[in-house]
Amino acid sequence: MKNIYLIGTGLIGGSMLLDLKERFKGSRFYGIDQNDEHCNKALENGIIDEIALLQDVKNADLIFISTPVDATLTILPRVLDLIRNHALVIDVGSTKEAICDCVSEHKNRRQFLAAHPIAGTEFSGPDAAIKNLFQHKTMIVCEVEKTAFILQESAREIFDFLGMRVRYMTPAAHDRHIAYVSHLSHISSFMLGKTVIQEEENERDIFDLAGSGFESTVRLAKSSPAMWAPIFAQNKKHVLDSLDGYILNLTRFRESVKNDDHKAIFEDMEQTNKIKTILKGIENGK
Amino acid sequence: MKNIYLIGTGLIGGSMLLDLKERFKGSRFYGIDQNDEHCNKALENGIIDEIALLQDVKNADLIFISTPVDATLTILPRVLDLIRNHALVIDVGSTKEAICDCVSEHKNRRQFLAAHPIAGTEFSGPDAAIKNLFQHKTMIVCEVEKTAFILQESAREIFDFLGMRVRYMTPAAHDRHIAYVSHLSHISSFMLGKTVIQEEENERDIFDLAGSGFESTVRLAKSSPAMWAPIFAQNKKHVLDSLDGYILNLTRFRESVKNDDHKAIFEDMEQTNKIKTILKGIENGK
Repeated sequence: MKNIYLIGTGLIGGSMLLDLKERFKGSRFYGIDQNDEHCNKALENGIIDEIALLQDVKNADLIFISTPVDATLTILPRVLDLIRNHALVIDVGSTKEAICDCVSEHKNRRQFLAAHPIAGTEFSGPDAAIKNLFQHKTMIVCEVEKTAFILQESAREIFDFLGMRVRYMTPAAHDRHIAYVSHLSHISSFMLGKTVIQEEENERDIFDLAGSGFESTVRLAKSSPAMWAPIFAQNKKHVLDSLDGYILNLTRFRESVKNDDHKAIFEDMEQTNKIKTILKGIENGK
Repeated sequence: MKNIYLIGTGLIGGSMLLDLKERFKGSRFYGIDQNDEHCNKALENGIIDEIALLQDVKNADLIFISTPVDATLTILPRVLDLIRNHALVIDVGSTKEAICDCVSEHKNRRQFLAAHPIAGTEFSGPDAAIKNLFQHKTMIVCEVEKTAFILQESAREIFDFLGMRVRYMTPAAHDRHIAYVSHLSHISSFMLGKTVIQEEENERDIFDLAGSGFESTVRLAKSSPAMWAPIFAQNKKHVLDSLDGYILNLTRFRESVKNDDHKAIFEDMEQTNKIKTILKGIENGK
């Protein structure tokens, strides 16, 4: 792994490289980004050793694609066109079906591994990159059987080094489940933020009244629209399904409040309290 | 303040007493709770010195009412009936209009101060009580002009000792704003938890896929239904208004996704990103 390229020098790819510099000490790390400022920051922060261009990936041994998922649909086939025949390409986008589909017939499909690390923060860009972001986190790998054995192994070794536990799924199952446990969380948080801002916009000091509960629930509304808008668009079907379920539950809860059905309100909340056990599972597992 | 009584020995009242034991070293602290287990726990944890009954508040100098807000409507008038003429009664419930209304004509109204500390966690009961919970947090005080001057002063001194900043509001304004920045956050979180549990119920290990984003957004769904169901019922009008706004925003967002209106999705999120600045205000202020 002499030449390692990162396309998209943001939070996820940047954090990955910060860790991998320990693993691949003799290697040279290159950054490619259409945002010059991000490239320069990544260089400054020691994430990459050199700024490169897309055509340079012909010299790569390992390439990470960590761009907004709409851009990945263009970049990934182009990268597979350009690479040498031993190079490994890993994408780390938050959707998997459209990305896997866009290269399903590519002659170099076996050099590609589709992955999604369940890690991140509400911040973005190279300045948000941190060491050990992936420690004890889950890496979802899709269609592993379509990747060459030797490259499956290289990828697994990298994920192990990052401290991740690997879970294998189909792209379809990934996109459906992630719509609920990740994409819907972001939308609920963004719309909560929007609703409160609309109501309170002329009374700014009213946010004095907001406590840590509001802060926690609305945290994801700080996330980058450039990263997230394409995710929602690309996972349209499952996002719509999850939103339908969410809006229906909210509408029913509203009816219970309207009808003074205290029993229904109480039971709805009590049954949802079992999220405690589930979250404990997440905390213990990670 | 020789005899200090706490009615409702849970998270908020318990945390308050843990701090106030430092301030009132010579005083005796009594706990009243219809839940015997909570009373015993509060005794065990050093929150109170002795378990008492409601009629004992006739001996009190200071009484905190920290019960579910529906219970407060019965307990508060009864307490005002029983107390000596120098005693101060403070309620710390999450709604203020119904509570203030229920004693507006009481002959001892001037011995009562209506307050709401913007502090807490998603946990409940005496085991959840912690020291310094109120440090740098906001205490909302309503209808302060209806409390006797000398008792206003005593209350202020207590809140200062707890490290709180005091904000004065009308009960109506309190209930409206709190519906948005607190009650709606809880409902959005509970319904998110419910929606995800419904979808994923038969595939428990799918929660492996949930990251810290889901955890943060759904955290409030661990909250106590016994505490929260009465809050939503009591603040019905404003909770319904806030839910209407929220459901409308979600429905519009859904339409944008459905119609592939990427520009609308992006702008919606970008405009909501200003929550960053607002949250920074919260963090700096507290």
